[in-house]
Amino acid sequence: MTDLPQLDTPVPVIDLDVVERNLIRMQDYANRHGIALRPHIKTHKLPVFAQRAMDLGAVGITCQKLGEAEVMASAGLDDILISYPLIGAGKARRLAALTLLAKMRVAIDNKLALDTLAAAAREAHAPIGVLVEFDSGQKRTGVVSVAEALDLIAAVKEVPGLRFDGLMTYRNTPLTGPFIQAVKDAGVALPIVSSGGTPGWDSTHETPAITEMRVGTYIYNDRMMVEAEAATLADCALHIIATVISRPEPHRAVIDCGSKTLSSDVMPGGKVPGYGLILDYPDAVIERVTEEHGMVDLSQSEMKPKIGDRLLILPNHVCVVTNLHNDVVAIRNGQVEAVWPVAARGLTR
Amino acid sequence: MTDLPQLDTPVPVIDLDVVERNLIRMQDYANRHGIALRPHIKTHKLPVFAQRAMDLGAVGITCQKLGEAEVMASAGLDDILISYPLIGAGKARRLAALTLLAKMRVAIDNKLALDTLAAAAREAHAPIGVLVEFDSGQKRTGVVSVAEALDLIAAVKEVPGLRFDGLMTYRNTPLTGPFIQAVKDAGVALPIVSSGGTPGWDSTHETPAITEMRVGTYIYNDRMMVEAEAATLADCALHIIATVISRPEPHRAVIDCGSKTLSSDVMPGGKVPGYGLILDYPDAVIERVTEEHGMVDLSQSEMKPKIGDRLLILPNHVCVVTNLHNDVVAIRNGQVEAVWPVAARGLTR
Repeated sequence: MTDLPQLDTPVPVIDLDVVERNLIRMQDYANRHGIALRPHIKTHKLPVFAQRAMDLGAVGITCQKLGEAEVMASAGLDDILISYPLIGAGKARRLAALTLLAKMRVAIDNKLALDTLAAAAREAHAPIGVLVEFDSGQKRTGVVSVAEALDLIAAVKEVPGLRFDGLMTYRNTPLTGPFIQAVKDAGVALPIVSSGGTPGWDSTHETPAITEMRVGTYIYNDRMMVEAEAATLADCALHIIATVISRPEPHRAVIDCGSKTLSSDVMPGGKVPGYGLILDYPDAVIERVTEEHGMVDLSQSEMKPKIGDRLLILPNHVCVVTNLHNDVVAIRNGQVEAVWPVAARGLTR
Repeated sequence: MTDLPQLDTPVPVIDLDVVERNLIRMQDYANRHGIALRPHIKTHKLPVFAQRAMDLGAVGITCQKLGEAEVMASAGLDDILISYPLIGAGKARRLAALTLLAKMRVAIDNKLALDTLAAAAREAHAPIGVLVEFDSGQKRTGVVSVAEALDLIAAVKEVPGLRFDGLMTYRNTPLTGPFIQAVKDAGVALPIVSSGGTPGWDSTHETPAITEMRVGTYIYNDRMMVEAEAATLADCALHIIATVISRPEPHRAVIDCGSKTLSSDVMPGGKVPGYGLILDYPDAVIERVTEEHGMVDLSQSEMKPKIGDRLLILPNHVCVVTNLHNDVVAIRNGQVEAVWPVAARGLTR
């Protein structure tokens, strides 16, 4: 990758060859193990990449919010899982409308979310699939007991227009397999068992009950995925090109990207410092960000960039980075191929 | 403020009466002390509020990036300070073009940024004002010594098409006054001395050398400003309406807003926990956020919201929150008045 001097900074650039390799690697893994791949679009938010994953063999896509699904369905993606509980009459109406464009599934973990799906089903143009989410230890959404899962499954099965499709969890942990088995032991058939998360993606097959993967970050990867050994630096497709705008002191540089460009997401666990990795200066630390300033500590870096130098930065967490940007620059062999609006950016509803 | 049941969540709502009070309070303070007010648009990113501040008596506006200035100038704001060093030929061209629409000033702290301004001046339609930025202790941009300031000021004065207008700093500290005095003692006339930051706004006049204030956050305020005693809860104009989407365990709720809605910005100093204040449940803690999930610890909260309840949340840091949203809902007396696109959102270049 060159520094693409024609691009003003800060700017996110995506290497299309790396994206293609990442998409193929994951589809190959899924094929090899007979697991359905349903990539999560939250990382790229671009219909073009959702469609490319479909062309390579994905069974459908995953969206977190209805607004994302509306963008994707309008672009022709016609098999969508919303991996998030929907609550309220407004969301029921929007879900019902979406059934005109796409085969819809939704995950729920409570009966109020089921009421919303029931309301949607009354207006829907096709049956809505339902996955019951259980918690594999992330302490996020998801029922925490098998009894609750069975109770909710029974309730789903009583609602006209809904189809119980199975279970969903985020992420696969040692708790996942036993939970699934306990539900099966209660006599429940599970056409789909869906698991999410790029970390640990290549051991998904070790939990044979999982039928579907909802990985997202793998398309770009990031510093967190490299630290988690879910990817290498060569597998990282998105970088920020930044410019050194000030060198106020010998051991201090300021770059033109801060939390509006890199986000404020830090590395989990607190051991790896900084708000991103400067590829050519791995010992420099982006120690602090304000909205538009990145403060770089050069005291441990033998080489020190000068004002005007352009730096390639690997973000800590790429999903939140794409959400910050109105558009991304797609490159191949160091040349700009396209500038794409991030179509599903900021769609939190 | 009601919970505005017609609005789907999560949604940022802005109380126009509180905004108006905040704008008037700051302008009154500036008038009382003979300080020029040049509000920073980074907090709201809306031409309508920039214009309202002008109507109330502001001398101009402040933008951090050229892209923000382009939006504001196109909307008719005609006196703009870019409080940020510009580097590179692309930025020079854009700055030159802006001089057709607005009286432009730019802050610099180094000679490469001066070269960019010199290039802009060669194509500009009017002189470009220059402020030399000095560091009052924030360790961000800004020269750190009086000698560097004097050297840069002398260089500015030699460039045709540029006009040396004075000094700029962010923020006002005990170092600010002595630095300004030292520059004056060297015989440099300073028509403008500009200081930024809402914290400590009401003691700006105690540094009499400051002629201009670049406050931004004061228009909405946020949890950080309340903690810094720069505002009260009643002065906070922007809140997020969120919905409880899951209650997986007795002491745990999940809300439909995470880092894509509230940002990952934590309270400075590490003493105040959480990613925002839930107004009706002040003892509940939004202890963790992922992109679309907010995990709420209810263990210290006697009252516990149930699934479907709508909550008003005061963000930690409102400037990064408005940057996340495509639009904001303007309300008055609990009624929706308008939905405004956040015109200068995401413009990091």
